[in-house]
Amino acid sequence: MKSPLNHLFKSFSALQVATSYHSGSLAPNSRFSALPLSSSTVHFHSCLRRYGTSTDTESSVTDRMGIEAITETKRLASFYKEDNVKRHKPTVWTTPDEAAAFVRDEIDTVLFDCDGVLYRTLDQCPGAAKCIKGFLDQNKTVLFVTNNAGVNRKQLREKLANVLQIDELKYEQMISSSYAAAQYLKHQLGDISNARVHVIGSSGLCDELASNGFHLSGGPMESAPSGMTRAELAQYEFSEHPVDAVVVGHDTEMNFRKLCIAENLLMRNQDALFVATNKDSFDLVGADGRHIAGNGCTVVALEYATKRMAVNVGKPSPALVALIKTDHPGCMENPSRCLFVGDRLDTDIRFGKDNGMKTLLVMTGVTTSKMMEMLGEGTEEEPLPDFIVPFVGLLI
Amino acid sequence: MKSPLNHLFKSFSALQVATSYHSGSLAPNSRFSALPLSSSTVHFHSCLRRYGTSTDTESSVTDRMGIEAITETKRLASFYKEDNVKRHKPTVWTTPDEAAAFVRDEIDTVLFDCDGVLYRTLDQCPGAAKCIKGFLDQNKTVLFVTNNAGVNRKQLREKLANVLQIDELKYEQMISSSYAAAQYLKHQLGDISNARVHVIGSSGLCDELASNGFHLSGGPMESAPSGMTRAELAQYEFSEHPVDAVVVGHDTEMNFRKLCIAENLLMRNQDALFVATNKDSFDLVGADGRHIAGNGCTVVALEYATKRMAVNVGKPSPALVALIKTDHPGCMENPSRCLFVGDRLDTDIRFGKDNGMKTLLVMTGVTTSKMMEMLGEGTEEEPLPDFIVPFVGLLI
Repeated sequence: MKSPLNHLFKSFSALQVATSYHSGSLAPNSRFSALPLSSSTVHFHSCLRRYGTSTDTESSVTDRMGIEAITETKRLASFYKEDNVKRHKPTVWTTPDEAAAFVRDEIDTVLFDCDGVLYRTLDQCPGAAKCIKGFLDQNKTVLFVTNNAGVNRKQLREKLANVLQIDELKYEQMISSSYAAAQYLKHQLGDISNARVHVIGSSGLCDELASNGFHLSGGPMESAPSGMTRAELAQYEFSEHPVDAVVVGHDTEMNFRKLCIAENLLMRNQDALFVATNKDSFDLVGADGRHIAGNGCTVVALEYATKRMAVNVGKPSPALVALIKTDHPGCMENPSRCLFVGDRLDTDIRFGKDNGMKTLLVMTGVTTSKMMEMLGEGTEEEPLPDFIVPFVGLLI
Repeated sequence: MKSPLNHLFKSFSALQVATSYHSGSLAPNSRFSALPLSSSTVHFHSCLRRYGTSTDTESSVTDRMGIEAITETKRLASFYKEDNVKRHKPTVWTTPDEAAAFVRDEIDTVLFDCDGVLYRTLDQCPGAAKCIKGFLDQNKTVLFVTNNAGVNRKQLREKLANVLQIDELKYEQMISSSYAAAQYLKHQLGDISNARVHVIGSSGLCDELASNGFHLSGGPMESAPSGMTRAELAQYEFSEHPVDAVVVGHDTEMNFRKLCIAENLLMRNQDALFVATNKDSFDLVGADGRHIAGNGCTVVALEYATKRMAVNVGKPSPALVALIKTDHPGCMENPSRCLFVGDRLDTDIRFGKDNGMKTLLVMTGVTTSKMMEMLGEGTEEEPLPDFIVPFVGLLI
């Protein structure tokens, strides 16, 4: 417990709050631009491991992530303290004991978002493994609920096992939006022996759908050109049979050709299901918090082209809570004893709120203190969480 | 006047209306699926010319287009006749004399949409050249107002000259949305000597902007890959200076990489202008009416990613009517003596309606009789036109 991160955390309440927030030349909402980045290589906890290709020495990324999250949380605590408007404000936990005691005593089921909560790319978020192991030791039900459709359940389990070094996680605890899409299609289409599904998305999504028995078209399409002229589209040979569903998951190789093909398949069979694994608007990447377009961008483009609305099966959709209730009967019988832990307001926190759970925001993901400040008392789409902690390591 | 098209038109009011509309195996809203396609090669008018690469013999495409448009108009006239709901209904002109007399006597300025009204790709719509020439002979002000940002003013003039075989059209009559975008940027940015504009769109749009003095980035980007992984985006080298504007025009080579780059440029400078040349949702291509995604799809994707709204400078935006009034003072002083002729309700007809003009829909473009029937009395977004004729050749 001798890392600079731990030191900073211990000094948490005594630290002065920076009164201004300059973004410099970086993105205005960059969460990293004004932060005192540490190049320390000292371990935060002995249980932290980092698995990646970064040239930094071990655990510096995790340390840096923790320091940033604490600084952000500190800003926010100061903002809420100085904010004289009478309104609901989240509880910002400033000691690990408070947070840990609450979860230990008040919560039976913990549902975790993954990216930005337990890891960022291949870097573990501070204390994530310790947190999960601790909850398992406390015999809590722990579920992993990700909008990332790029992984199937098996891959999600492997990623958690690799990044967190936990072997005992079960397949059934994995609730990826690719899994949710497959289950939704099975439920809606009934007999799927001949069901044809067209996919925009990654091989992980295709694997999940194929392993559930669907006949697929689309997917990565690596050899196809990316564009599509009017003449090419006029001559394009569609498969003879209309598809029963179009599923849209995040695809960093998204292009105009894929958009037009999916658009025409949806127009050719107005009864075809139109499913979005999620409608996330963006995610952050890189040290200066760059925006990478989320799956929601492709979904709204296709909705606009077809004048049809997709069914979202990811967070915060009702379809997903129905799936969790079916898969894990009992675990949501008393939702007020469920805790949703996430880094996004519009998916994680809203999903928890919509379903009567307690909600907790961590500051290791996309939500910044500045975004929270601008949001005031929140909106229906982006509600405030009940609780805020810098990172999940403080929950145990 | 001995073509089958002319014969069909002459027999217009006497023809039986098909009472059912089967789309067969094609797109449900295909405008061509139930039509008696003629393979006739007889000329419709001696003034019609066809310029294309089709292997059909001369003028069959124009004839077919005319027959389809008449059949569609006939369906619609029958629908309105049998529709007992008391509400405003468009006037469907069933003789050429009525339409021609109205325009001759009541209209001083005619504003034409181009694609789907005067031509389809390289095929002239029936009687388009005769119509334009006739209006010029009548000393009417004639303007060409297209949302197609793929052409600059020069290219639009050339296309009209080539397809319609009219040499006397002036540069000033050409109002493309690429021109509107350039003028809007000049007006908003003031001194543009150092203005940097990032473009999603075609070389035609880039040419128009560059010729107005803007420093451009983006555009066709032919050598760049189409995708962008998280790692690539994290390492992407943005130009040092933030851009002053991002302009989005139709791009059949649109891809995820372009989306992410534009997204980050907009996030880096929240004051950067965000301009859409238009927000068309789709266009139709090919004999079975396939949907090709419109520029609006890219615009809404980028709006969703950035949580910012683009300024539309194409139809039906107020920005465009301001530009026309500036460029052609006097021509819109009495808007009730202006006629907007178009094939789309949400752009052409709405633009005319919003600005007090008379509006006329032709059936040679994207709007089908079925769409009109389903629309009933229209919506604010898709208002009904004042008048309907099968094609522009009947206006003279």
